[in-house]
Amino acid sequence: MTDLSLAVGRIPTATDYERWRAADRLARPARLAALRERMADEAVDAYFGVRRENTRYLSGLELAEGEEKGAGSSGHFLVSGSELVVLADSRYTLQVEQQCPDARLERVYNDFLARWPQLLSSVGGPRRVAVEAGFVSHATWQRLAAAAPEIELVAAEGWVEQLREVKEPSEIERVAAACAVADAALERLLPDIRPGATEAELALQLEWHMRTNGAEALAFDVACLSGPNAALPHGKPGPRALQRGEVLLFDFGAQVCGYRSDMTRTLFVGEPRSADLEIYDIVARAQQAAIDAIEHAIAAGERPTGPALHVISRDVIVAAGHGDHFGHGLGHGIGLATHELPGLGLSAADVPLPSPTVFTIEPGVYLDGEMGVRIEDTMWFDADAARLDRLTLFPREVTVVG
Amino acid sequence: MTDLSLAVGRIPTATDYERWRAADRLARPARLAALRERMADEAVDAYFGVRRENTRYLSGLELAEGEEKGAGSSGHFLVSGSELVVLADSRYTLQVEQQCPDARLERVYNDFLARWPQLLSSVGGPRRVAVEAGFVSHATWQRLAAAAPEIELVAAEGWVEQLREVKEPSEIERVAAACAVADAALERLLPDIRPGATEAELALQLEWHMRTNGAEALAFDVACLSGPNAALPHGKPGPRALQRGEVLLFDFGAQVCGYRSDMTRTLFVGEPRSADLEIYDIVARAQQAAIDAIEHAIAAGERPTGPALHVISRDVIVAAGHGDHFGHGLGHGIGLATHELPGLGLSAADVPLPSPTVFTIEPGVYLDGEMGVRIEDTMWFDADAARLDRLTLFPREVTVVG
Repeated sequence: MTDLSLAVGRIPTATDYERWRAADRLARPARLAALRERMADEAVDAYFGVRRENTRYLSGLELAEGEEKGAGSSGHFLVSGSELVVLADSRYTLQVEQQCPDARLERVYNDFLARWPQLLSSVGGPRRVAVEAGFVSHATWQRLAAAAPEIELVAAEGWVEQLREVKEPSEIERVAAACAVADAALERLLPDIRPGATEAELALQLEWHMRTNGAEALAFDVACLSGPNAALPHGKPGPRALQRGEVLLFDFGAQVCGYRSDMTRTLFVGEPRSADLEIYDIVARAQQAAIDAIEHAIAAGERPTGPALHVISRDVIVAAGHGDHFGHGLGHGIGLATHELPGLGLSAADVPLPSPTVFTIEPGVYLDGEMGVRIEDTMWFDADAARLDRLTLFPREVTVVG
Repeated sequence: MTDLSLAVGRIPTATDYERWRAADRLARPARLAALRERMADEAVDAYFGVRRENTRYLSGLELAEGEEKGAGSSGHFLVSGSELVVLADSRYTLQVEQQCPDARLERVYNDFLARWPQLLSSVGGPRRVAVEAGFVSHATWQRLAAAAPEIELVAAEGWVEQLREVKEPSEIERVAAACAVADAALERLLPDIRPGATEAELALQLEWHMRTNGAEALAFDVACLSGPNAALPHGKPGPRALQRGEVLLFDFGAQVCGYRSDMTRTLFVGEPRSADLEIYDIVARAQQAAIDAIEHAIAAGERPTGPALHVISRDVIVAAGHGDHFGHGLGHGIGLATHELPGLGLSAADVPLPSPTVFTIEPGVYLDGEMGVRIEDTMWFDADAARLDRLTLFPREVTVVG
């Protein structure tokens, strides 16, 4: 299967944003209907949500990463059988009015808990209310319970997240656009990568390229790790200067109209050492093995499971004698959150991948104190259309810089 | 009282970072001792914390804003009468070993909950354990309770936060350095502020100046709001181009070795309108009234309360006929978090300010659809030393740009 260029795998424009927001508005009734099906299955009359990504998915309200920490109850929402209510204090009322035309705005200030019973009455007086228990603090849960003791609170986890793993076309477009922004930024950075440059400088420069050329935000802080630092799957860029003959690992992503990309490339600064090229080849083959397995499954009319793909990819690394040097999962879904369902690690659900969806494939080999290689692409998978496309198009082949 | 230049109110160096980290290490035993006093008062045998800022304050582990979302249980910590234990999975073990030399590292992976009983046993088998209930999700709380049902969990809120409001000298130094970074960045931006430039461009440029000249991160996303947008106390910079004769409001801050600054300046693009200058004068007088009140209290050997300062400042705005146009609190403490204790709004505790401490004073007047003015400084208050110093030194006087 060849990579097909998506029409939208390009730097987005203001017109794209308008189109995507319009598509979201059209899609929201079906998203809400799906949540209401789950609510009916679980015999709850209402759903109380606080997670930033879920607020956006169901209501359209756009909060930046971390903004929810200072937003109080603004952005919290309540879904009943017939209504969607979004809370906002005075800082957020205008934004809710503009971004959530199909929701009822409920104005709150510091009085949210006092008004909880009245809020429930306003949506028909539910008796069992699902609450996002993985995102509501225990202190808040206790206060909700005390404010309306006759209401049964039901701990809900993953209800909206399981809807979000299946992607609509406009969501895939946005991930693809975020991938294009990341591709272009790394391309633009290449001339500045030379011995003597520091990890921190290059990370900031790469961020700058994304944010001045299409990204509304980063998907996450840029990782730029050189030489032995590349062996740290979670290292942070520091003052270390690049040296000739080393690897240089970038793990980075952009955000476009809410949706994110995630890509890792391991470059070679100057002439690669043959031992490093061997590691690179192992990792590239491990990634390709997972891709091949998905394509074979598609051809057979099947959908593989995340854990099965992890094992297939990992087996390549194990066969090369580096099983101990690959300690993380193979990949993860991506969308409004950088890490979301489906999981592609051993601990993920052993069920067929959802479709259509978007996920990363990112095997790595890490040699402590020496070097590390990871190759990560964001992939679009559509079983019905029999398609598996890379959305991150920066070359995977050995790339020498400096 | 005059502004005194702090020796450290300057762009920080790597040497400063080393010195500050060393000071933190020396200070941590006293911080832990203070928490243990509170634990004894509350009759708990252990304290389980998850809040990023509290982890750093007590252990030294440095997680970036938002990093805790993807860190799993890494960075969670347990304080007993004699030990500090920091959890880390394989991604974080090296960092914990380096940054937390006085803590015991406990390696976890996805097995934290299964190991909770053993973890408790390892610190002497406490019977009552305080848990940061405002930051632990309800789902996690329930799982902790189920994993060790014989242990009583006690909801703790604010125990460490109340310690953090009193600042050590090296903490004040870092806030001052973050203020210096912000001052320098705005100074550097001035030549680029001219009619036609957009809010988003200027916000990004200001961020760039901070991050390339001393900031390890932003304290929060830069607000840059022009003309009528300045009336939105929570607006976000957009594509709007500056026009001559308008106000331009910047609200921004830097982070230096974990600690933050917060400053708002409202500039005039071209010749100010006299009506706008009148508003500016009201806000400046409102801010000065709060500063004067603190200085008078200092002279009388007293410490004012946050709510009292809010009323004093607000009265100036009310007397000018704009009481309805100032809807937020007067200020907030700042340190490892942008907003922390003490509060200076009406809803804050009506008790004397802690000392020494650092907080903002930020009155504003917002005329819907027309314009807004806010003036905000980060202030250092030390009652024993009889000092109140501005740490943000960019001029407060009317500043015309463009």
